Amino acid sequence: MTDTISGLWAAAATPVAPDGSIDHAALADHAQRLIARGCDGLVLFGTSGEGPSFSIAQRLEATEAVLRSGVPAGKLALGTGCPAVVDTIAMTRASLGLGITRAMILPPFYFAGAPDEGIEDAFAEVIDGVADDRLSACLYHIPQVSGVGVPAAVLGRLRTRYGATVSGVKDSTGDFDSFLAFRREAPDAAVLVGAEVLIAKALAQGGAGTICGMANLVPGLVRRMFDGPEAEPDMQEACAQIDGIPMMKAVLAAMTEEPVWRRVRPPLRAADEAAARRAAEVLSQLEG
Amino acid sequence: MTDTISGLWAAAATPVAPDGSIDHAALADHAQRLIARGCDGLVLFGTSGEGPSFSIAQRLEATEAVLRSGVPAGKLALGTGCPAVVDTIAMTRASLGLGITRAMILPPFYFAGAPDEGIEDAFAEVIDGVADDRLSACLYHIPQVSGVGVPAAVLGRLRTRYGATVSGVKDSTGDFDSFLAFRREAPDAAVLVGAEVLIAKALAQGGAGTICGMANLVPGLVRRMFDGPEAEPDMQEACAQIDGIPMMKAVLAAMTEEPVWRRVRPPLRAADEAAARRAAEVLSQLEG
Repeated sequence: MTDTISGLWAAAATPVAPDGSIDHAALADHAQRLIARGCDGLVLFGTSGEGPSFSIAQRLEATEAVLRSGVPAGKLALGTGCPAVVDTIAMTRASLGLGITRAMILPPFYFAGAPDEGIEDAFAEVIDGVADDRLSACLYHIPQVSGVGVPAAVLGRLRTRYGATVSGVKDSTGDFDSFLAFRREAPDAAVLVGAEVLIAKALAQGGAGTICGMANLVPGLVRRMFDGPEAEPDMQEACAQIDGIPMMKAVLAAMTEEPVWRRVRPPLRAADEAAARRAAEVLSQLEG
Repeated sequence: MTDTISGLWAAAATPVAPDGSIDHAALADHAQRLIARGCDGLVLFGTSGEGPSFSIAQRLEATEAVLRSGVPAGKLALGTGCPAVVDTIAMTRASLGLGITRAMILPPFYFAGAPDEGIEDAFAEVIDGVADDRLSACLYHIPQVSGVGVPAAVLGRLRTRYGATVSGVKDSTGDFDSFLAFRREAPDAAVLVGAEVLIAKALAQGGAGTICGMANLVPGLVRRMFDGPEAEPDMQEACAQIDGIPMMKAVLAAMTEEPVWRRVRPPLRAADEAAARRAAEVLSQLEG
């Protein structure tokens, strides 16, 4: 029995306190706000959440704080993929221990050029190591950032081996052909897109929805993408305002008037505040 | 007061037990063997050591076992760079707590395309966070694997900011122009090459030596590279036998007749045993 990520999930940003730790209260507020504004759930500590920039302990403690604030475990998923499989297993098991069954799992991302079979070995070792039927593993394909991707054939083989435990994949390439390859290789898995402009097109081809960063800023506009392609031009204009995670966070700071959101962890650098204020105005108009 | 890595250091391979953990006894034996065969020291848990494939706790426990076996802390350096700066600080501090002052530090390697200033921020935060004058930080540049490199200008700026605490860089690109750029930007830092065939050429241009994987197999041949370019054809032939870390480990298994060395951690996959035996014969002849 597994819970698949589907519909509109936010790739939640992570608020950074002055000392570099996670601001638990701001994260919990943000989670509640996103759910109130129509998100089906949130993935904490993906790329938009700068997940790999925080230790496993930091990520788990912040997650506990979000749960304590009243956000249901069923509306959360955690990014748990680490370079060491043993760490991925530990974090995924800890996540299940908190009642969170959905994990978005990067392949081990140190070795660029790792062979497909080795990437499959890694995911298999994670699933075997977690050894919990409740696990719903959404593999995470974002090679342009992580350097190591999830080959479509690997998703297909793992789905065959593990059934619904491998619930799907998040494809963050922004390449529709990549989405189609995942659909072809694993027709009964949930294929989610990260690129907001592809949502309507992907849904029409059997896509399961999105996990996306723009949901932090304009969840209403993201939701309109589920109604059909009419919202695509607005979404294109919205995305053109955001040239990366620092700008996304700076715009969130401008929109919420909570400066904590502008801070990022190295190796990222905070975006320009004035530019973010201008972008926030454009986005607020598009959100309506 | 810092200790610079210079001369001939091995990028030590890591023996993997059947359960995926580190075989402490085999690692300690290997460390002693490499020192007996003329290595000036060993870096544990670099790329050849599959460092990012092990948890911080696994790496530190294995290091303690190597120290307990009698290898002096002054002949060891640890790869301590993690995607999260907070983890890099913790592991580097723990390493210093074991008396090991030399660290080979990757930049945070998740975010491909991280800005140069952000990479500088990350290293600065590590050095400030470790806050120990004994630290000798050798930055680790291997962008073709890690996806995120150390720009030469960043080395230069950090050397200016932190003096000898930033003792140098290991350049694993195999690109001599990259080596020269590091020399130019930080003339008083120790620039080490990873590519064995470049050792003589680099020494002639003020290079500090090497940290290299071939030292696991043919430390005598690597040493001959310090005497001049005459050994280059032999080294080229030796390197042509080894097409990656799995083959390096399989050859080590063949040479030592210790099968534990053939095992690798996902996402790598073990190399062919018969091919490794043939390569081992060629290398043994070249080592002489």
